[in-house]
Amino acid sequence: MALPTGFLAGGVACGIKSDPTTPDLALFASDRPATSAGVFTTNRVVGAPVKVSRERIGRTGARAVLINSGNSNACTGERGIKDALWMTAEVAARLGCVPQDVLICSTGVIGRFLPTDRIATGIGPVVDSLVATEVGFLAAARAMMTTDTVPKQASQTVSLGGRPVTIAGACKGAAMIAPNMATMLGVLMTDVRLAPRDAQSLLAAAVEDTFNSISVDQHQSTSDTVLLLANGASGVELTGESRETFQGALTDVCRELATHIIRDAEGASHFVTIDVVGCRDRCEARRMARSVADSPLVKTAIAGNDPNWGRIVSAAGYAGVPFEERECSLSINDIEVYRSGAPTDFQENAVSAAMRTGEVRLTLTFTHGSAAARFWTCDLTAEYVRLNADYTT
Amino acid sequence: MALPTGFLAGGVACGIKSDPTTPDLALFASDRPATSAGVFTTNRVVGAPVKVSRERIGRTGARAVLINSGNSNACTGERGIKDALWMTAEVAARLGCVPQDVLICSTGVIGRFLPTDRIATGIGPVVDSLVATEVGFLAAARAMMTTDTVPKQASQTVSLGGRPVTIAGACKGAAMIAPNMATMLGVLMTDVRLAPRDAQSLLAAAVEDTFNSISVDQHQSTSDTVLLLANGASGVELTGESRETFQGALTDVCRELATHIIRDAEGASHFVTIDVVGCRDRCEARRMARSVADSPLVKTAIAGNDPNWGRIVSAAGYAGVPFEERECSLSINDIEVYRSGAPTDFQENAVSAAMRTGEVRLTLTFTHGSAAARFWTCDLTAEYVRLNADYTT
Repeated sequence: MALPTGFLAGGVACGIKSDPTTPDLALFASDRPATSAGVFTTNRVVGAPVKVSRERIGRTGARAVLINSGNSNACTGERGIKDALWMTAEVAARLGCVPQDVLICSTGVIGRFLPTDRIATGIGPVVDSLVATEVGFLAAARAMMTTDTVPKQASQTVSLGGRPVTIAGACKGAAMIAPNMATMLGVLMTDVRLAPRDAQSLLAAAVEDTFNSISVDQHQSTSDTVLLLANGASGVELTGESRETFQGALTDVCRELATHIIRDAEGASHFVTIDVVGCRDRCEARRMARSVADSPLVKTAIAGNDPNWGRIVSAAGYAGVPFEERECSLSINDIEVYRSGAPTDFQENAVSAAMRTGEVRLTLTFTHGSAAARFWTCDLTAEYVRLNADYTT
Repeated sequence: MALPTGFLAGGVACGIKSDPTTPDLALFASDRPATSAGVFTTNRVVGAPVKVSRERIGRTGARAVLINSGNSNACTGERGIKDALWMTAEVAARLGCVPQDVLICSTGVIGRFLPTDRIATGIGPVVDSLVATEVGFLAAARAMMTTDTVPKQASQTVSLGGRPVTIAGACKGAAMIAPNMATMLGVLMTDVRLAPRDAQSLLAAAVEDTFNSISVDQHQSTSDTVLLLANGASGVELTGESRETFQGALTDVCRELATHIIRDAEGASHFVTIDVVGCRDRCEARRMARSVADSPLVKTAIAGNDPNWGRIVSAAGYAGVPFEERECSLSINDIEVYRSGAPTDFQENAVSAAMRTGEVRLTLTFTHGSAAARFWTCDLTAEYVRLNADYTT
């Protein structure tokens, strides 16, 4: 994996999780001040780290992002804020910067105070573990995981005016994943030089069609955060043309990370791509795509490789978008099952066999216009229920 | 069960369902013309019976409601409409009325044409089965069922100006149950005398806090219908005061039917009552209650008797209602777990034991005002997934 110049990462286990050997403390750092940008959950209830980090983005002195898994430090009142501030101060002291230059994210169970005694034993080691290698980035990506089964990373190098710029990122997902916000924890690092306002607008645009276009279970987390650090180590600044190239690459990296989340969603056995096309505007297309993505009945049918297409059409029907049935058609893995308001004479077995591959493409086509939206989701399985029926106790 | 004067009911099996002995054709009838009212799904995709019935309510000549289960006759285009019209004409011919006096509902799989040859063999028998007894009403309630495990009925007799008036009803539920509409099939019958406009407003008011305040899986059906027939056989008309008594009784019957649906929800093992109190207005309270009710993470935690209260608070947090965390508290089965934005020192085992009874009461308390809302839902179990992963194939 290509790494942006001047970034280091590392991860350690410090006992926040019940198994003391499972990594739970990650650190990403820049060897020089970086411009930071961030998008955060729009939940009214937000974790203490979100409150701390959103005050600290939009500056040019960012040096690090500290992430712990196993405890989200959310719904923990004043004590939670105090704990988050303390963690960033501990890291800052070791990196030789001020606490304001350290961003923080936490993920895991909601409503428990952080085990600060154990975290205290991990701060030194995680700073000492920082290296500018793939091994270090992988260790950090692992230490961010909760019920994720695989670490999630992506990177891309693009040439801007003949000079290489790299974007690398890591994220974690698994559950409590829903769109209309930054939907999980993600850190993006690039060695391009960016002003804070540019960094924020590039990040916001990339997130919209990627992290904000996925849903595992429609439950918006209290910790959702995507951060971007741009340290300028490549010496490259964006111009009008190269800005477009960079935006495309940043969006590609975000899309790869977002689809990693869906592929590793809790209990999921199918990766589902929903395209809604032929709409009046993108907002209407998105609303219908999301309604389909969030329906437990659609998701359970997919789990069973059941081409129960009436559930898909009816989920679009309650999305609040006006349409007549004859203006709507539906394909499942390119097999048309519903055309202009009436069922086609399709072979159920053929559709079911296509679904059994684990890759499901739903295409809802309307006759209203040319706007479209794409959304990614997964199926709903008994394994998801098992995983979530017994998470804290 | 008390029955309103002048109503008859019956049910038969005619082979719409795969097991030819399972009842699948129900008929409710009045021996004299009745005022009809109805509320219907707000889904853009609606079954042919919904299109037919909503044209026929609001009149004073209604004589019957024909219901088939096993096939919803939805997403079936022109042929679906033709089939629904034919069914009502067949019943009307035997009852000696015009087709416009017969209402129709269908429930079951979406997107398949009705087996009209089999239904043709059932119309005569179901008309012949009509009786004004509890046995007949039970047979009709049974023939409406899809994945329901028990028939659902309720009735109440009230004295209006010293004279008895009875309201009886039947409904079916199980899944594809979500609020903000009439959420399933329900038929209410009363022997009070009502003008069409009164019937409609009494029904709409009763539905709002009952059928529109439940959710199994947030998926709004294409067939949702609640009908009211008032045949005046008691000779009683409503006055200002008795109207209030009647409205209360009608709402009670609807609430009993609605909670029957939740208790028999597909795969459910917990009955969950969500109270949101201390809000600025009822709409905000409802929005938060619904957000909690629809969260798969809340529902799976309840399935596991897991007092994972952070999921509940965070689901309220993304409902779109502004609040500060310190303005929010939460109790589970009267044990306070979150007070003014911070966790209490509650015993997890005690809460879990209380949840194990199968009855869960969540009370979210805000400091904004005196408005409140109550919502009913169920848990999300592996059994729900199993039932819905393989419904059509």
